[in-house]
Formats: sequence, structure tokens, C-alpha cells
Amino acid sequence: MNQRETLCVKDDHLVIGGCDAVSLAAEFGTPLYVMDEAFIRGMCRIYRESLAEYGPYRVLYASKAFCCKGIYRIVEEEGLGADVVSGGELYTALSAGMPADSIYFHGNNKTVEELEMAVENGVHAVVLDCLDEIGLLDHVADSLDKEVGVLVRVNPGVEAHTHHYIQTAKPDSKFGFNLAAGLAEEAVGAVLKTQHLRLLGLHAHIGSQIFDKKPFVLALHKLTDFMKEIREKFGVDCEELNLGGGFGIWYSEEDRKIPASGYAEYTRALAEALDEDVREKKLKRPVLVIEPGRSIVGEAGVTLYTVGAVKEIPGIRKYVSVDGGMFDNPRFALYQAKYSAALANRMNDKAEETVTIAGKCCESGDMLAVDVRLPKAERGDTLAVFSTGAYNYSMASNYNRNAVPPVVLVCDGRADLLVKPQSYEDLVRNDVIPARLQKVKR
Amino acid sequence: MNQRETLCVKDDHLVIGGCDAVSLAAEFGTPLYVMDEAFIRGMCRIYRESLAEYGPYRVLYASKAFCCKGIYRIVEEEGLGADVVSGGELYTALSAGMPADSIYFHGNNKTVEELEMAVENGVHAVVLDCLDEIGLLDHVADSLDKEVGVLVRVNPGVEAHTHHYIQTAKPDSKFGFNLAAGLAEEAVGAVLKTQHLRLLGLHAHIGSQIFDKKPFVLALHKLTDFMKEIREKFGVDCEELNLGGGFGIWYSEEDRKIPASGYAEYTRALAEALDEDVREKKLKRPVLVIEPGRSIVGEAGVTLYTVGAVKEIPGIRKYVSVDGGMFDNPRFALYQAKYSAALANRMNDKAEETVTIAGKCCESGDMLAVDVRLPKAERGDTLAVFSTGAYNYSMASNYNRNAVPPVVLVCDGRADLLVKPQSYEDLVRNDVIPARLQKVKR
Repeated sequence: MNQRETLCVKDDHLVIGGCDAVSLAAEFGTPLYVMDEAFIRGMCRIYRESLAEYGPYRVLYASKAFCCKGIYRIVEEEGLGADVVSGGELYTALSAGMPADSIYFHGNNKTVEELEMAVENGVHAVVLDCLDEIGLLDHVADSLDKEVGVLVRVNPGVEAHTHHYIQTAKPDSKFGFNLAAGLAEEAVGAVLKTQHLRLLGLHAHIGSQIFDKKPFVLALHKLTDFMKEIREKFGVDCEELNLGGGFGIWYSEEDRKIPASGYAEYTRALAEALDEDVREKKLKRPVLVIEPGRSIVGEAGVTLYTVGAVKEIPGIRKYVSVDGGMFDNPRFALYQAKYSAALANRMNDKAEETVTIAGKCCESGDMLAVDVRLPKAERGDTLAVFSTGAYNYSMASNYNRNAVPPVVLVCDGRADLLVKPQSYEDLVRNDVIPARLQKVKR
Repeated sequence: MNQRETLCVKDDHLVIGGCDAVSLAAEFGTPLYVMDEAFIRGMCRIYRESLAEYGPYRVLYASKAFCCKGIYRIVEEEGLGADVVSGGELYTALSAGMPADSIYFHGNNKTVEELEMAVENGVHAVVLDCLDEIGLLDHVADSLDKEVGVLVRVNPGVEAHTHHYIQTAKPDSKFGFNLAAGLAEEAVGAVLKTQHLRLLGLHAHIGSQIFDKKPFVLALHKLTDFMKEIREKFGVDCEELNLGGGFGIWYSEEDRKIPASGYAEYTRALAEALDEDVREKKLKRPVLVIEPGRSIVGEAGVTLYTVGAVKEIPGIRKYVSVDGGMFDNPRFALYQAKYSAALANRMNDKAEETVTIAGKCCESGDMLAVDVRLPKAERGDTLAVFSTGAYNYSMASNYNRNAVPPVVLVCDGRADLLVKPQSYEDLVRNDVIPARLQKVKR
């Protein structure tokens, strides 16, 4: 369990956002995604308040981490915009009433339909990712008679991941325009020649689950250098500098535990470095934009499961199987991601066993956590897996035709559905039996 | 492209089941899963006809490979039953009119609700996977006043994967009862003591994507040894011996190309070994049950995409991005699975480039194939990825809120929807904005 204030233990039970986890499991069933509203709002505020100490800024919620209508309402109430990466995310954001002019549209391969949808609805910016997209978007804007704000996504040659970063000579990425190879400059030049695109500025995203400030600052320096070149070469100031997201969160003892306030260190480091660069390089101070996703919702989430089969293979491993698995959380299967877990109905019991938490899918690799310490788990126990708020619901599938679990939002002891459970009827909703295959011919 | 007769080239276009792939893409949009009915039926027949030359048999379609209502109609018409691994698969099969008594219910951790659903509907067999499930199922059967046929899933200590197998001393699996450790015998004894469970026989599944007959035959020998022990110890004959599935298919040049008829070699090897064992070990000849899934639908599937962004990083890699990705096929991200691809609209063009096919998800690992040879691909080309019939649609997600693509069934030049496309409205169908978060309070 991490150090969050909204997560505590009462009467031997895990309590999330003031709600007893065992009661939540009983009321809504398991598996159940539980999202802690206070945590989400707290993170939004930390980002905004820390950046507000400096010049103009904008915080965008990176929808891909956790996308449903309700999350847009929360982040909008907290003054955030949103970044979206598909027509589906844009549709969801707009359905929730998020103003289009606070939305940025990203993606390495937006379809023409998505570009049309973005332009038609008037998103604040489309983030350009490849050269022929520039002409394509200009054409779409022309046909819809609109002007479109754009950012150019730059690959700055800095790549960072958990615990380390590289200033890379290997710009092998499907994303963005390579800076060193002159492709970013070519893109800026191409944008400035269009009829309907307005260059707002630059974007970069250097990786995810990063705990070190240095690679962010290094990427920023490279981008301000580039802003200076753009100024000199094209006589244009960038109004916005968008440094993406990627701030690390706590999943297990391998990760740093950062209190909410700790995330202000990232934003302050960026804002200070920007102000210094702006002075040094004599630039117009751009709006500093960041796009946190995982750090806003990740630790806000706890998934509750019911323990089923418990299987000890003597001398080898003990499997504790739960009623979820890779269909609600594929991150172990995809990335061998590490998670922490607890028995939510017996929080005061001592951890006395090392077990593997397996899912219920027909696949050997369907696990949620390997070699975690737990009290002796038994059928019927409520198992909580922590830090599941990001990239769990958003990556959920119907593998084995398991239903995607519901999501509840907890706050001050109340729990509201954010996403209803899928029913069996939902699972077959789009299935069609062609007439010639019908049992009773009609 | 593989050697299937139903896949050919006409007027420079790929033709699947008599349908022009480029026309399919235009009619149904992309991404599009295309399933070749003749291939599916052909595989069902090969399995049935080859086993029919021996004693009693049953072929079950392993639903998890590709589950929707229509596929159950096809396999039922071909005389197959089905194995299901969740309430959702059972619901789908029953909705399609599949008779319950041709359904087997598997899973390492069936929920009580699933056991109730299986018993209530009268499935032919529940495949038991852990010790306390025996009492649980007996209790469910008692409360519903039913008798339930059961198989005991045995871990025979043979594990096989692509191109190799091990007779393992490492029975580290969440599935089944370990044979060597005596756990399978304990399970059989427990079943025989219940009031409502009827022991039908044994089940084993030794792995997937296997190209070698030997491990199947070895597992069979171990199971017939165990049948003999059961006979001697408990005085009971096993009526069924279920050897699961796992027969390999062609994905890329790394895999063997097996013509449909080649799969009869597996079944004949099993049937012959069984008949020999039965004679030698003086057993009652059980019904031989197999559960192919991937081999029935895998090579029947082709996914069609539209090429979008094409990005060359000089000297490093060329990315050809398509309008799908890990949301419709997560197998590269999960297993680094290899696929073959072609430009469906220019089949006669020579492959002249080595490219990486990337998806449109906001994730570096979102790729479909690395270093494949293709003609020079351009925006608008129709890209076909082969052998996507298994574990693609069934593992699809809404990651990045991308919609799950539709599935069409092609046969003799006609194309029918098997699964309708998800709409944006489908994506937000279960989203709820709690009253207190509504923009206009009601």
C-alpha cells in the first residue's frame, strides 16, 4: 500500500476515498475498478498551482491513461484541458462537454475521418506527426473552411524511461519529426507555407514512467534551441511549448514514492529552465504546456478482485487465482509490469506467504503479479491491486469474452458508477448470424 | 501469402473467399477482419473425417480463438461441439443455438456464477481444475438438483511449444492437477465421493503452436497409464479422453506450412496411439476428444488496413503506419508474434523494401510486424496481414478508445457481417457522469 492519505485501514478493511473496499466489492461485484476522486483532483491542482507561479501555462490531461466521460468532467472542473489520440477519445471528451478549444489531437497516424472530426469541432490544436499530414490537414481545413492551430511534434533525440535516459543517436521511433536530421525544420517550413494551418508551437514527449528531471530539462533546452532557429530562419515565434508527460508513479517497491507535492518539482524545473532559456535565447516566452496522464489517475486506482482457486504446487509456487486477469489489466502480460497487492478484508493480517496472483483467462501468461507477499489467501477473500488507475480500464479487452468490469468513483465515503459493467448482452450486441447460417431459416 | 486455395490474386488484387480485398475494404471500411468460411469448414471436416476412421470421437471448437455467434453456427453445422472458458463464451454459444450438451466448460478459476450457469444450462461437462472446485460444483449441482458430467484436467508433465517440447520436471502451471505429485488421483477420488458429479474422464492440454506429434502422443501415453490406475484403484472406466488442442499454424516463413490434410496426421497419430494403448493396457476405449481452435480459424483470417503515415528514418528504419494496431491485434506487443503482410491492391508489385508496420496507438511498442518485405507502400494502399483469424478479434481492446473493427465472413464471392463495427456511441455506451459532476445540474 502506498502513502496516500485517502487510502487507509479501518476495522481490518481497506478503505478507499472513505469507502470500505469489502462493501464496494459486495455492492458492485468484482472485478471492480475503484477510482479515488480526491487523489485525481489533488494531482490536477499540484500541476496547475505549481505552474501558476511562473508564466502562462496549460495542463492537459492525457486521456489515453483512463478515458470515460466522467474523468473529463473532473479534469475540466480542475481547469485542465485534454489531449486525445483518436476519434473515440475526442468523441468521449466532447460528449462530456469538454470545450473543443481545450483539446489537443495527437497521433502518429490520424485517419482523414479523425482529422475532419478534429477540424469540424474546432479543437485547439492538431499535433502534426508526419510530413504528408500537413498537406492533408490543410486540405481538410480548406474543405471545411476553417483555420487550424497546429503543433509540430519533434523527436528531440532524448529518450527516457524508468530510472534512466539516453541522449540518443538512435531516433528510431514512429513518432514525430527528427530534430537532428532537419526533419522538424522541414515540417515547420511546410506548415508556414499552408493556407489554413497556424503554427502554434512545438511538442515533444520523451517517454514514460520517468523519475528524473534531467531528461525533461534536456529536451526543453533542445526545443528552445529549435525555437530560436525557427525565429531566425522563419521570423516566427512559437506561442506554445508542449513537453508532453511521462512522470513516474509508484507501482511497487521498485518505484519511488512521490507525494503529490513532489510532482511540482518536475513542473518547477521545467518552468525555471524555460524562463532561463527564454532570457538567454531572447525568445518570446511561450505558454508552457504539459500532458500528465498516468500520474493523475494511476495511483488513484485500486482494482478489487475476489479470490477463487488457490493452488499450491509443492516446492514450486502457490497460485492465487482471482476473477479478473489480463482482460482487465494486461500490463503484466505486455510489460511484465510489477504491482503491489493486499487482502482488502484482512488488512491487519501479516503477510506470511509469497504467491503468484493469476487471472482466470485460459493462458499461462495471464498473471497480475508474481512473487508478492500476502497473508494466507483463501477463496472468497477480497484482493486489492494498487496503482491500477492508468492503462488498465483503458487497455481492457473482452478476451475469453470476459466482460470489462465497472468503474466506480469514490469520494468522502460515497461511490458513484463512472462506467457501468458490461452485460452478457453487451458482449454479443454486435454479433450477427448471417441469414444463410440461421438455424431457423427466415 | 500462404498456400490456401481460397486465397488468390486477380487483377493485381488479393482475393479472399472469392471477394476482392480492395472492394471489401471500400465496402466495410478498415481495419477489417475477413474470415474465410471455406477454410474454416475445411479444417472442421479434416478433423472429423480423419477421426471417424477410428473409434468414437468428438471435435470441440476452442472458442477462445475467435468467439462470436456466427462461428458457433458454422462449427455446429460441421458437427463440432465447443469448449468455452467463461460465462461470456457460454452465453454466446447458447445465444447462437449451440446445444448445451455439446459444450465443455473449462477454466482455472470459474466463478460460482459461471458454474451455476453451466449446470443450469446442462453443459456436457465441466472440466475440473482445482480441488475445492469439486465440492463447490457438487454443491451447485445439489442446489439445482442436477447431475453434472466432469473431466479432471491433468497436468501430465509434458509441456510443448513451437518447435520443441519438454517432458518437464517443472510443473509450474496455474492449470490442472499434477499427475506425478498424485494430485490428479486425489481429484479423481474426490469426484467419485461426490453426490452429483459423474466422472466422464480426463483432460490435458500441453501447449500451443505445436508442430510435432510426439508430445501429444507422449501426453496420451501418460493419460492412458493414469486411466489404468483409475481402473485399478477405483474400478472406474474413463468414458472420454480429451487431449485439448495446440496444433501449430502458419504465420510467417518461420512456421511450417501445413496443408489442411496435414492436420489429419495429428489426429491419426493420436487415434492410433490410443487404440494401441487401449489394447495393451486392457482399457475400455474412450471417446477421443480434441479441441482445436487456432488451427480452425487462424489461417482463415486476413486483416485489411489502410496505409497512412509513411515515415523513413534515413539509415535506420521505415515505418509504414496503418489505421489499426495493438487494439485489433495485440499479439506482437504481447508475444513479439511474427506476421506476414502484402499490399492487397498491388499484389503483383515486387517487394522492394524492408519496413516496419506500425499501428496508430500512442505507444512505441504498437507494431504489427517488424522488418517485413513489401513493395513501396503509400498512403491509401490496402495492407493485408495474414493468419489473423485466431486471437486477434478475441483479444481486441478499445485501447486509445479505438473501436473494435467489424468481422466479415467471405464465401464464394459473398461477404456477410459476422460482427458489426463498434460505433462511437458503443464506446461511451456504459459511461456515466455522476449527477454531482453533471455540467447542468438536474
